[in-house]
Amino acid sequence: MNPVEIITAKRNGEELSPDEIRYFIDEFTAGDITDYQMAAFLMAVYFKSMTTDETVALTVAMLESGEKIVFDPESKLYVDKHSSGGLGDKVSIILAPLMAACGLKVPMLSGRGLGHTGGTLDKLESIPGFRTDLSIEEFKAGVESIGCIISGQTPDIAPADRRMYALRDVTGTVESVPLICSSILSKKFASGPNSIVFDIKCGNGAFMKDQKQAEHLGKSLINICKAMGKGSAFLVTDMNQPLGQAVGNALEIDEAIAVLQGNAPADLIKVVLSLGECMLTMGQVASGEHALELQKSKIDDGSAFEKFLEMVAFQGGDTKSLTKKSPLIPAKKVFLVKSEEAGFIKAVDTFRLGRLIIEMGGGRTKLGQKIDHSVGFIIHKKIGDEVAPGDIIMEAHSSGKPPDDYLVRAFAGCIKPGKEKIKEPKLIKQQFK
Amino acid sequence: MNPVEIITAKRNGEELSPDEIRYFIDEFTAGDITDYQMAAFLMAVYFKSMTTDETVALTVAMLESGEKIVFDPESKLYVDKHSSGGLGDKVSIILAPLMAACGLKVPMLSGRGLGHTGGTLDKLESIPGFRTDLSIEEFKAGVESIGCIISGQTPDIAPADRRMYALRDVTGTVESVPLICSSILSKKFASGPNSIVFDIKCGNGAFMKDQKQAEHLGKSLINICKAMGKGSAFLVTDMNQPLGQAVGNALEIDEAIAVLQGNAPADLIKVVLSLGECMLTMGQVASGEHALELQKSKIDDGSAFEKFLEMVAFQGGDTKSLTKKSPLIPAKKVFLVKSEEAGFIKAVDTFRLGRLIIEMGGGRTKLGQKIDHSVGFIIHKKIGDEVAPGDIIMEAHSSGKPPDDYLVRAFAGCIKPGKEKIKEPKLIKQQFK
Repeated sequence: MNPVEIITAKRNGEELSPDEIRYFIDEFTAGDITDYQMAAFLMAVYFKSMTTDETVALTVAMLESGEKIVFDPESKLYVDKHSSGGLGDKVSIILAPLMAACGLKVPMLSGRGLGHTGGTLDKLESIPGFRTDLSIEEFKAGVESIGCIISGQTPDIAPADRRMYALRDVTGTVESVPLICSSILSKKFASGPNSIVFDIKCGNGAFMKDQKQAEHLGKSLINICKAMGKGSAFLVTDMNQPLGQAVGNALEIDEAIAVLQGNAPADLIKVVLSLGECMLTMGQVASGEHALELQKSKIDDGSAFEKFLEMVAFQGGDTKSLTKKSPLIPAKKVFLVKSEEAGFIKAVDTFRLGRLIIEMGGGRTKLGQKIDHSVGFIIHKKIGDEVAPGDIIMEAHSSGKPPDDYLVRAFAGCIKPGKEKIKEPKLIKQQFK
Repeated sequence: MNPVEIITAKRNGEELSPDEIRYFIDEFTAGDITDYQMAAFLMAVYFKSMTTDETVALTVAMLESGEKIVFDPESKLYVDKHSSGGLGDKVSIILAPLMAACGLKVPMLSGRGLGHTGGTLDKLESIPGFRTDLSIEEFKAGVESIGCIISGQTPDIAPADRRMYALRDVTGTVESVPLICSSILSKKFASGPNSIVFDIKCGNGAFMKDQKQAEHLGKSLINICKAMGKGSAFLVTDMNQPLGQAVGNALEIDEAIAVLQGNAPADLIKVVLSLGECMLTMGQVASGEHALELQKSKIDDGSAFEKFLEMVAFQGGDTKSLTKKSPLIPAKKVFLVKSEEAGFIKAVDTFRLGRLIIEMGGGRTKLGQKIDHSVGFIIHKKIGDEVAPGDIIMEAHSSGKPPDDYLVRAFAGCIKPGKEKIKEPKLIKQQFK
């Protein structure tokens, strides 16, 4: 086997054998296939795509490029969730302890924010002392003893993926379904779950702009999981506006705590419970109405929040800061964005709102940048809501930069009012179990 | 401007501006755009190609990445020739001194053999002492004083091309017309000619397998030359069998000398004179029948051979070795390959013959490998020729490796006899002036 022949075969649209793919990834991991050969290969995959068999081989090769965390492979209880990313998506932070309270084991490796969407690890790091760099041993111990852990990918987990991901970012090869799938799944399955539910976000604040694309990604993920002998399901959920009301790192922790304490925005709890139902079904704990009831009971009796506190404590976080009524990290300035006209909210520029969080210092433009956990916003009016002049649309939490008047104008510009009454967008666009 | 945006635009099939292309090549030359970004870009160009305007911008940017040799830009006399490469193609070695004898100035930068075809520099290095590493000053002085020089690309000439060419070779991005054109032309125009004739080889021993492909490459080259204000013409010539009779480094020098002394195989002299006619026309020295007559007279009166000796002497070569009747470098062993049946030669596996030269040590599989100048073969029967059992088809010149019986079988296997009479292939398939 020879790297140039493999690149050329993919370029010519041929199906590569599992051995060829394995060879290519192994040699890349070992440093014998260069970054430039990988870059050419990634671009060829962008153009010619991959069959399910090829993507499975790629995922397995990437997964096996590093250490694997192994739990009981016979047990259905180890279930994970993955979101394709959207604004205000704090679902993992709620769902992991909720599922643990329901009896599942959730070994969740998560990522940082880059681009216009936030990262679960950044949000959790708003909690003083919270560690996202657990060792593999700590991670395993936490999952077994508490039932959930949310930590970062260690350097030993899927190293081929880390290098390929970094290359894709600088070579214009991000938007490829087989590359997206193998990147997600190699990391996810390296952390030991036996099944996964995927939350494919769809809309102007998501990577997938339309439902057809989202469904294609979801079905591709399912097919690969099936071929790997893993359980899977996916939901396509709306991302034409932020999920819930809070956006920003500490503000989202505040909202996650409120949800775990039974005080949830309707859209957010609906997504949480729908994904939870899939996870409980795959974990063979409960399904349908039973699964919904079980989840609600674990919120009502306080055990979901209790699990959250246990997880935070295990990961070194200060739990006292989470049981106060006050905000976790108050921002320097809070000011209001009000409606100037009467009508109905027609659309929200979700992507622009995400970029504004970065401008305020709450996100990154480069890997490694420090972020301000206090900044963000609370959105009070969402698509379909009626507004009158002077109604509060948003509450901006700022560190003072950029200037207030710029932010007020910018935030107001993200909310498009209309004269006509409009229905709110369908939240759960598709369910595939 | 940002490299990822440029790669992505090309990937999406957009036409890049000259500024974007210039930026990309300049930053690559400076080391600020990485090899992996260039590799992704090259693969995107492979898939989405380039317009003539883009290819011109690419050629100019690559040309201006290093030093340029400048002669009199007003003079039509500076004319070069480029061949896309084929087996037994020693045309440059004959044509450069012949054109110099006719009054042109031929500043020829040539390459080494890699793959199944030989390289002009390797052939010339069969001459004891011959230097192919002239400095730019030596190159210029030789062209001005003698009228022709054949030397190698110095490290200062089109460095972007050298790096891109090396990358293409290991990333499966060789077969792209805009990349082929820009590579050829950036090097060629850096050596100072004001016009070029292209000999596009076509057939089973050439890069271009069919006439449509060959014509596409020829027209692309012409369009770019035109846009750059340079004169150009192309011929598509047959490469379904070796050109002339000799293949192998020293053997081809022997044959080139024979041609310059008026003793030429019919096909070889026809290609030489046809290309020469184009060059003399572009140089405004002579055209049509006059150009043919002029060339023949310069062979007949010995002045073409004299120019060759002058060039060899200027480049440090031992001219005495060229005026003996004996072979330049006799091979260890010469043995005959004979016909086993009666009939007509139907086809020649030209590609395989080229590979056999490499197996014998006369070519390279890796850059930098040493080669044996003495090995090769003389072909006595060509397509359409009648053969009887026992007729000599080829004469193999070997160093003893691989074993004689292997070589006899392998050589014989390259010549396909048939029962039916067959016409020889059309030699000059197309002329475009």
